[in-house]
Amino acid sequence: MKIIIVGASGTIGKRIVESLRNEHEIISVGSKSGDIHADISSVESIENLFRQTGSFDALICAAGNAYFGPWNTMADNEFRVGINHKLMGQINLVLIGQRYISANGSFTLTSGLLSSNPVPAGSNASTVNGAVNSFVIASANELADGIRINAVSPGLVEDSTDYYAYFPGFVPVTMQRVVAGYQQSLLGSVTGKIIEVH
Amino acid sequence: MKIIIVGASGTIGKRIVESLRNEHEIISVGSKSGDIHADISSVESIENLFRQTGSFDALICAAGNAYFGPWNTMADNEFRVGINHKLMGQINLVLIGQRYISANGSFTLTSGLLSSNPVPAGSNASTVNGAVNSFVIASANELADGIRINAVSPGLVEDSTDYYAYFPGFVPVTMQRVVAGYQQSLLGSVTGKIIEVH
Repeated sequence: MKIIIVGASGTIGKRIVESLRNEHEIISVGSKSGDIHADISSVESIENLFRQTGSFDALICAAGNAYFGPWNTMADNEFRVGINHKLMGQINLVLIGQRYISANGSFTLTSGLLSSNPVPAGSNASTVNGAVNSFVIASANELADGIRINAVSPGLVEDSTDYYAYFPGFVPVTMQRVVAGYQQSLLGSVTGKIIEVH
Repeated sequence: MKIIIVGASGTIGKRIVESLRNEHEIISVGSKSGDIHADISSVESIENLFRQTGSFDALICAAGNAYFGPWNTMADNEFRVGINHKLMGQINLVLIGQRYISANGSFTLTSGLLSSNPVPAGSNASTVNGAVNSFVIASANELADGIRINAVSPGLVEDSTDYYAYFPGFVPVTMQRVVAGYQQSLLGSVTGKIIEVH
């Protein structure tokens, strides 16, 4: 398959690439690295991305920023970090990408366990993750031509050691299990599913 | 209690007002009607609202637009309807309103059953409703001074006859049950709860 991986150099993305590159054609996408550079918070940048890739069989997005910070001074512009990047970035990859994806292709997005398991300072990420999950549930019924869509909802991932302090008492999940979640979506037949790797 | 009701003239809002006005001080808010006019998609308008109300004991938001329309031509600007209004509108009511609400006060937001029960053309509403639910779950742990926050997630409501065609096979819920959901949040002791009225 011809597979676009957005966030290919990230903590999760690079492990996904490793697991797939021997058997598939990978197009790696990053904000500052990879085969194609794209800023998913920009509609123009996403349109430019797909003009370069042309048609493809699957897209995995393992990218998306959200805001972590103190609650009582949080304002609209801070909350928009996650809205514009991890939420609308992933949604626009699907809304625009549907015009380029092959029949029976698949989209795999990334949410996260904060949607229902909050941590201090994480309300922006929680909100965005809940939104991505509901988007996947709804859009699975809208996509035509056998195109599937799922979300992987990772817990605290083993390699994200910088995040450990934000997730007190959360037991990290191994990178092997996280990658397996993306494989379930990519290589399986499910659609509209939130694949929890918690 | 001094209670701000946003969307006070709407299908749900006017029933909430009826149920509370004999025993509480109600400040009705609407985009074009009510004691105070406010556009919740505007941060400036929300700040202006609270400058007029001053301190208050509870806020109920039963307002929020989302986009319904064909999937395969849906674009960022259409998807932003729900993001900017029903989602960021309600979030900004809380982020800004926390500076004005009394200790032990409460916020009650509105999501909806589309978060997990999609209908055709409703992916924007689904996404926004899922986001509101996760925001409530996360922010309940962030609010100080005993301030509570919940969401009511109504199904297809009895009086929204204009929406019946969008919800094939959904059994309408009575206005009495919908109003009772808001009373659970306002008059009870729960916080971080999604009160499903499906």
